[in-house]
Amino acid sequence: MKADNEIRMGEVATDWRGGTDASLVFIGRIHTPWTDLGACPRRGRPDGPLCRIELFETWVPALAGISDDALIEVFYWLHRSRRDLLLQCPRDDGDARGTFSLRSPIRPNPIGTSVVRLEGRDGANLLVRGLDCLDGTPLVDLKPDRSTFIPQAPEKPGDFHVGEQ
Amino acid sequence: MKADNEIRMGEVATDWRGGTDASLVFIGRIHTPWTDLGACPRRGRPDGPLCRIELFETWVPALAGISDDALIEVFYWLHRSRRDLLLQCPRDDGDARGTFSLRSPIRPNPIGTSVVRLEGRDGANLLVRGLDCLDGTPLVDLKPDRSTFIPQAPEKPGDFHVGEQ
Repeated sequence: MKADNEIRMGEVATDWRGGTDASLVFIGRIHTPWTDLGACPRRGRPDGPLCRIELFETWVPALAGISDDALIEVFYWLHRSRRDLLLQCPRDDGDARGTFSLRSPIRPNPIGTSVVRLEGRDGANLLVRGLDCLDGTPLVDLKPDRSTFIPQAPEKPGDFHVGEQ
Repeated sequence: MKADNEIRMGEVATDWRGGTDASLVFIGRIHTPWTDLGACPRRGRPDGPLCRIELFETWVPALAGISDDALIEVFYWLHRSRRDLLLQCPRDDGDARGTFSLRSPIRPNPIGTSVVRLEGRDGANLLVRGLDCLDGTPLVDLKPDRSTFIPQAPEKPGDFHVGEQ
C-alpha cells in the first residue's frame, strides 16, 4: 500500500512551494471516528455516525440563531493533504484528471466542505451527521446550507441583475 | 449611508486580531460587473451576467477534465470583509444574529462560495454565470458541484459507516 501522499504514475505536480496571500485562523476542531485517511468516507452520508464539532471559546457566541435541526455547511482544513498536484489519478490506474475536475482533498488550498444535519448542541459542541474528515481536522467555518438559507440583508441592485442571452 | 465595514448598533466583535494557522495561495482572479460592494447581489443567480474566472498560469493544467457545461463550485476570498464580528445585524435594525447562522461575507475566515454554470472557456479563462462577488475578487478553488459529482476514487470502508439511531 502506498503512503498517504505519495505521487502516483501519471500524476503531475507543480514546483510551487506555497505562498501566503491570505491567512486562516482555526476556529475549532472536528471529532470523528476516523483516525486513518484510508478509512474516511469519500463523502459524508446523512445517516453516518454522530460526529462532534468543537468551537473554540472565542467563537461560541457566533452560534446564536442556529436552528435546532439546521442543515449546516461545514468548512475544514484538510491538514494532511499535499497541495501541488495539477493532475491526479484517483484510481491509481494512470488515468490522470485535473485537480479542478475532482473533489479530492489534494488541491492548492485544501478546504473541504460537507453539508451536515445538526442533531444536538452542548455549549461549544455541535453534534452532527454527514461528515467525512479525519478525527482532529481543524474547523474553518460554519454556514447555513445554501439550500435552506434566506438572505437577511435588504435587497441590493445586483439581486436583479440578469445577463444577456 | 454607512461605510462598508462600519459596526452597527447591536453588533458584537471580538478583540481577536488575526492569526495564521494556515495559509492560502490565490490561484486566480474573478472578473464581474460589480465594482462596489453595495451593488453586488446577495447571492448569484443562474441567469445572472456572464463573469470571467481567470486562472493564474501555474494552475491552468488542473482544469483538465472539466466538462463543457459543468456546474462548478467556486471558492473565493472576500478580501474586503472585516473578520471579527460574532453577532451581526444584516438589516441594521438592532436585531443581532450569530455569524454562523448567516451567509454574510463578514466571518472569521471570509471564504465565499457560489455554484456556477460553465458557459465557455478560453485558455486560462472560464466564462460562467451565478457569481455574486466584487470585480477583482481573489480565486481560491474550483470544484465540481457536489450535486453532480461522482467520486472517482475506489470505495473506502468509511463509505459504509452508518451511525446508531
